[in-house]
Amino acid sequence: MGSKSSELHPHLHETQIEGSQIYKGKLLDVRRDRVRLPDGQEGTREYIVHQGAVVVIPITDAGKLMLVRQFRYPLGEVFVEFPAGKIDPGEDILTTGQREFLEETGHVANEWRYLGVMHPCVGYSNERIEIFLARDIEHKSEQQLDHGEFVDVLEMELDEAIAAVRAGEITDSKTITGLMWAEKVLRSDW
Amino acid sequence: MGSKSSELHPHLHETQIEGSQIYKGKLLDVRRDRVRLPDGQEGTREYIVHQGAVVVIPITDAGKLMLVRQFRYPLGEVFVEFPAGKIDPGEDILTTGQREFLEETGHVANEWRYLGVMHPCVGYSNERIEIFLARDIEHKSEQQLDHGEFVDVLEMELDEAIAAVRAGEITDSKTITGLMWAEKVLRSDW
Repeated sequence: MGSKSSELHPHLHETQIEGSQIYKGKLLDVRRDRVRLPDGQEGTREYIVHQGAVVVIPITDAGKLMLVRQFRYPLGEVFVEFPAGKIDPGEDILTTGQREFLEETGHVANEWRYLGVMHPCVGYSNERIEIFLARDIEHKSEQQLDHGEFVDVLEMELDEAIAAVRAGEITDSKTITGLMWAEKVLRSDW
Repeated sequence: MGSKSSELHPHLHETQIEGSQIYKGKLLDVRRDRVRLPDGQEGTREYIVHQGAVVVIPITDAGKLMLVRQFRYPLGEVFVEFPAGKIDPGEDILTTGQREFLEETGHVANEWRYLGVMHPCVGYSNERIEIFLARDIEHKSEQQLDHGEFVDVLEMELDEAIAAVRAGEITDSKTITGLMWAEKVLRSDW
């Protein structure tokens, strides 16, 4: 993790002088901090504090990917995405992945492999998304969606999903990241 | 763009009842809307309104990728990313890409190719990031950084950058998305 260690790049480092919470809603926790910049001057940083999330790359016995279709209000469009959801307070990330996969698709998986982490929005959010591969999938129940959650389930071949990235039909960052991982895992030795 | 059209999936669609601006800072514009959910009930959606951004995948004559190293305050870590920046009001996206590439790296490119768009954070931001490939690169000047911007420039082989994704050293979503595009463009017919 060499490039992630700030100690290696002290000439880039910023430190907090003072922090304040600007807004705390049902979803968003907005902060504004006064910071000391690398050149000694002061600056302001505004950002979202997020509890983190998990995305699941589910691969069926037939080798297909399971995805979900969901309306995303900020963009006013329907997106095709891998199943994902926020980490509950105190919840371990494997449990989050298993819970969200069951809730959104009604399926369980018997084989889970942790792949890594991605950061969707480094400029103004501290959100991290932990990535799991899920295999040996079984249908378990109906979807168990939260209030205000409406999700279709679909299956795609890997090639079809990658073609959908090229065509601009899959544009969600956690899903594109998951597809990069899926391609490497399924076709090589990652 | 079939899967993006909400008209195809009316059972997922949400519509605004009322919108309000919660906070308008230097960077963040935070909204909270009352919405009509697909089942007729009411819900709340909180999100960031963003002007959009451009990410540049610069490929040198030697076939290397140019990237930048930057401290990201929300996460308190240094990230390796493709050069990127926000679209100024009224600015066309190619101009944004050329401007940000020059500001962050001191380089210009004579060949620009538009690849597509990605959405970093569909759950709570309307940000879109437009993706350009830049080739035939020349050194032009010093970096022209904004106040509060501190950026190192580096070069990596494509294989090295992809290995860094696997190793968890590159985790930024626009950069991983750019690497997927770069790999396809450089190795196949995308």
